[in-house]
Amino acid sequence: MPGAMERKAVFSTVSGQPVKAVYRPEDIADLDYQRDLGDPGQYPFVRGVYPTMYRGRLWTMRQFSGFGTAEDTNARFKYLLEHGETGLSTAFDFPTLLGYDSDHPRAMGEVGKLGVAIDTLDDMERLFSGIRLDRVSTSMTINAPAAILWAMYLVVAEKQGVSWDQVSGTIQNDILKEYIAQKTFVFPPQPSMRLIVDTFEFGSRHVPRWNTISISGYHIREAGATAVQELAFTLADGMAYVQAGIERGLDVDEFAPRLSFFFNAHNDLFEEVAKYRAARRIWARQMRERFGARNPRSWLMRFHTQTAGCSLTAQQPECNIIRTTVQALAAVLGGTQSLHTNSMDEALALPSEKAVRIALRTQQILAEESGVANTIDPLAGSYFVEALTNQMEEQAEEYFRKIEALGGMVRAIELGFPQREIADSAYRYQKALEAGEQVVVGVNKYVLEEKITIPILRVDPEVERRQIARLQRIRAERDGGAVRECLRRLEDEARGTGNLMYPILECVRAYCSLGEMMDTLRRVFGTYREPAIY
Amino acid sequence: MPGAMERKAVFSTVSGQPVKAVYRPEDIADLDYQRDLGDPGQYPFVRGVYPTMYRGRLWTMRQFSGFGTAEDTNARFKYLLEHGETGLSTAFDFPTLLGYDSDHPRAMGEVGKLGVAIDTLDDMERLFSGIRLDRVSTSMTINAPAAILWAMYLVVAEKQGVSWDQVSGTIQNDILKEYIAQKTFVFPPQPSMRLIVDTFEFGSRHVPRWNTISISGYHIREAGATAVQELAFTLADGMAYVQAGIERGLDVDEFAPRLSFFFNAHNDLFEEVAKYRAARRIWARQMRERFGARNPRSWLMRFHTQTAGCSLTAQQPECNIIRTTVQALAAVLGGTQSLHTNSMDEALALPSEKAVRIALRTQQILAEESGVANTIDPLAGSYFVEALTNQMEEQAEEYFRKIEALGGMVRAIELGFPQREIADSAYRYQKALEAGEQVVVGVNKYVLEEKITIPILRVDPEVERRQIARLQRIRAERDGGAVRECLRRLEDEARGTGNLMYPILECVRAYCSLGEMMDTLRRVFGTYREPAIY
Repeated sequence: MPGAMERKAVFSTVSGQPVKAVYRPEDIADLDYQRDLGDPGQYPFVRGVYPTMYRGRLWTMRQFSGFGTAEDTNARFKYLLEHGETGLSTAFDFPTLLGYDSDHPRAMGEVGKLGVAIDTLDDMERLFSGIRLDRVSTSMTINAPAAILWAMYLVVAEKQGVSWDQVSGTIQNDILKEYIAQKTFVFPPQPSMRLIVDTFEFGSRHVPRWNTISISGYHIREAGATAVQELAFTLADGMAYVQAGIERGLDVDEFAPRLSFFFNAHNDLFEEVAKYRAARRIWARQMRERFGARNPRSWLMRFHTQTAGCSLTAQQPECNIIRTTVQALAAVLGGTQSLHTNSMDEALALPSEKAVRIALRTQQILAEESGVANTIDPLAGSYFVEALTNQMEEQAEEYFRKIEALGGMVRAIELGFPQREIADSAYRYQKALEAGEQVVVGVNKYVLEEKITIPILRVDPEVERRQIARLQRIRAERDGGAVRECLRRLEDEARGTGNLMYPILECVRAYCSLGEMMDTLRRVFGTYREPAIY
Repeated sequence: MPGAMERKAVFSTVSGQPVKAVYRPEDIADLDYQRDLGDPGQYPFVRGVYPTMYRGRLWTMRQFSGFGTAEDTNARFKYLLEHGETGLSTAFDFPTLLGYDSDHPRAMGEVGKLGVAIDTLDDMERLFSGIRLDRVSTSMTINAPAAILWAMYLVVAEKQGVSWDQVSGTIQNDILKEYIAQKTFVFPPQPSMRLIVDTFEFGSRHVPRWNTISISGYHIREAGATAVQELAFTLADGMAYVQAGIERGLDVDEFAPRLSFFFNAHNDLFEEVAKYRAARRIWARQMRERFGARNPRSWLMRFHTQTAGCSLTAQQPECNIIRTTVQALAAVLGGTQSLHTNSMDEALALPSEKAVRIALRTQQILAEESGVANTIDPLAGSYFVEALTNQMEEQAEEYFRKIEALGGMVRAIELGFPQREIADSAYRYQKALEAGEQVVVGVNKYVLEEKITIPILRVDPEVERRQIARLQRIRAERDGGAVRECLRRLEDEARGTGNLMYPILECVRAYCSLGEMMDTLRRVFGTYREPAIY
């Protein structure tokens, strides 16, 4: 009979979490359904944040897109909506992410390359041309300059005649994970946190349906973190933002309902599901017990998911369709509120129309054919999934204690603690790959000599020249006096303590450029230098 | 808050099984772990037939293949083995399935078209040329002439110097589902059952590692059955075979350990997993309680799975990679022993090399990247999956009672009962499709005007001429007197009561053709006519 011997000495998740051969009722003997899981929509929300979940409304299908000029990306937005996408998600180019105008020397060669180039309100208007901002929700992956891009979006709504209370979407606005992992930071922690709290305050007053932050584990995971590190560091970042809001004097229930999260969906199906379920329980308990939130909406960990870019291979690109299907399934079984599925060609190039359509079809097939959206949290009660959920929660708590001991997350980052933990995990993963203990199909096993034949999308080098010409025309046509006056007021407010959203909005309306506003703030706030990591 | 209202009045599986919004501990309050699930490798085997399952050995990756001549298919076998396949599976052409030689008038236009053409031992030798039969396991999808094709395989082993106790594999050999669904029957039920029991008896004596039958729900499901009908009718067929073996006077423990099963993996992930788990429990209980089997190996429902061909679409063929990934995952989470994953182009043509390689990669990624093979039966304990497993078992039992009341499965088939039940389900599904209640992406939603650009494999029309020429050469070169003598002995035995495997083996060794042997048996046994279904 097969099965007396096992194939490996240890079986573990892709993150290195050991997994037992069999999980039994005794592995979750202490589980108390009401206390530890709760019904969907009930504290501690392990089974989902809403009572009907996907039976009420499917997750938002939201493909991250952006390249070239505002017009190029606007066309892609419309293509996706036409093929059944239900929310927009904007990728900005590097100069925009770092707060440089397209004609800045540091922008050279990068304009519109990996995202759309946005310099002024004019670009933002063209980006959403023909798209009513009360009819879609829009996510914007922007961090250091998040307040500025958001202000541009709000002014576009204004010009469309859409009132701000009808506008919904998300700005990423999560600077802590930039310091940890993604590295598109500009200012040091203190002024960065100030800007973020400004958006919390402004949003709760004027844009009630907007998620003012998307606290992101995605990039932490992409940098090589384990699932537990992604879970722990993301929630620790979240707690730091809540703490900062409270320190500003805001009532936690004023801003916490608009905090949202963003996680990775990596290959290991059950580890990912357990991660999302553990995250909901941790967040609900922290918000209620530690931060004293009383509004149940403050307890909800709502999250967007993107499938793991780092898991995709340039080799045998169709294999990425398979990986993305499993990863998207994890997100759905984990109760995600919105989802981006990577395109099969993303390890090679920007996604082509066909590749992004197949990625969207992945979500549609899961939603409409696989049956997994018919019942809520179908894995609840599984001895394995519940045990893994508990185990990951405990390991995250262990990290919270360490971070607390270091003086909180901002201090831990300044000391390089999460960065070092992630670097260690990335190193262990790399060794496992090299030893063949971790298989990547097509890379270290089942390798082919193959000519890649999928079509490749590349951005026209003319884009940069055209974008610069347009920026210079805007600069020539706008009211220079008003621009100078608005930037001066922004600088004054930055030196003071007022909420910067108001002077930023004035700058945007006057067609100040992103670079001009960011330079103004850079003068006041300075820029961040990374700690060395040993 | 989203979620007060639901999107639909009723949520149900793809088979129309209603699904509740939430499953809770009380839905499986009566579940007794030891009695109802048992550890893997323990009665009633709900958690898997072996104690270590995929931690001991991964499922066999077995792609169903066959087209053109024996050489064409031999080349495809070698291609698949080279890319990591771990078992062979042979598709035969229509003339072979129906027991006609390639030069028979009814074979015209069909030779080598949808499977490989096999006329004599000579073809079988070329089919496995360069493949040692003690190094691979081979499945052969053959029913009415199963004994003959198996005899050919055994003589090839003989000629390779491989003893029969070293040969492993499966013949489908399941005639009851042919009457029900697939319709490639030849003889009436009684002589068909006799031939099948002959293989049970012969196998238990001479080929101990061979699965002498693969009791198949696959085609029942493809004909439009629900998951419960697939489950119930397949196991009812199985019970009819066991009954026939016992009636021959065989000890149930002599042949039952070599019975195997073959199920479909359709789109509805959890319904499929529940189906496989319920099937193991039903079979274990039936074998132990009803048929009195004492050997634990007789209690094991071991099964092959193929993803659902009927779920694939000619439109947007890459979507089939997504569907097949979900379906393959169901099979793996359900504890399958071997798996065929359909190729993305199967709704359009025979699978191309690239398409079949991607299909194989689907299995490899699930096995090596997704983590789902790390722990056994990871869904055990899930309130939903356990409740659905129970529910499907109860519904299958309901069918068993009806079939019993009709006088058993053979009689039920003669009366057209399962056929009618399946036709009703197929009709309901068709109505749901037309009403848009059941979505098929790319067919009744998210439809595209698209030119299909994937490469198409078609069989060269020259194949038929070449195959006929080869058959005629064999006829000319063989010992005609020996052929006549062997066929006469086969006819004599068929008119008597002896085990027909022995005279068939003699015919095969003398290079009698498939058609000659089948014609001999047709003369004695007659042919089957379907009952009319109202």
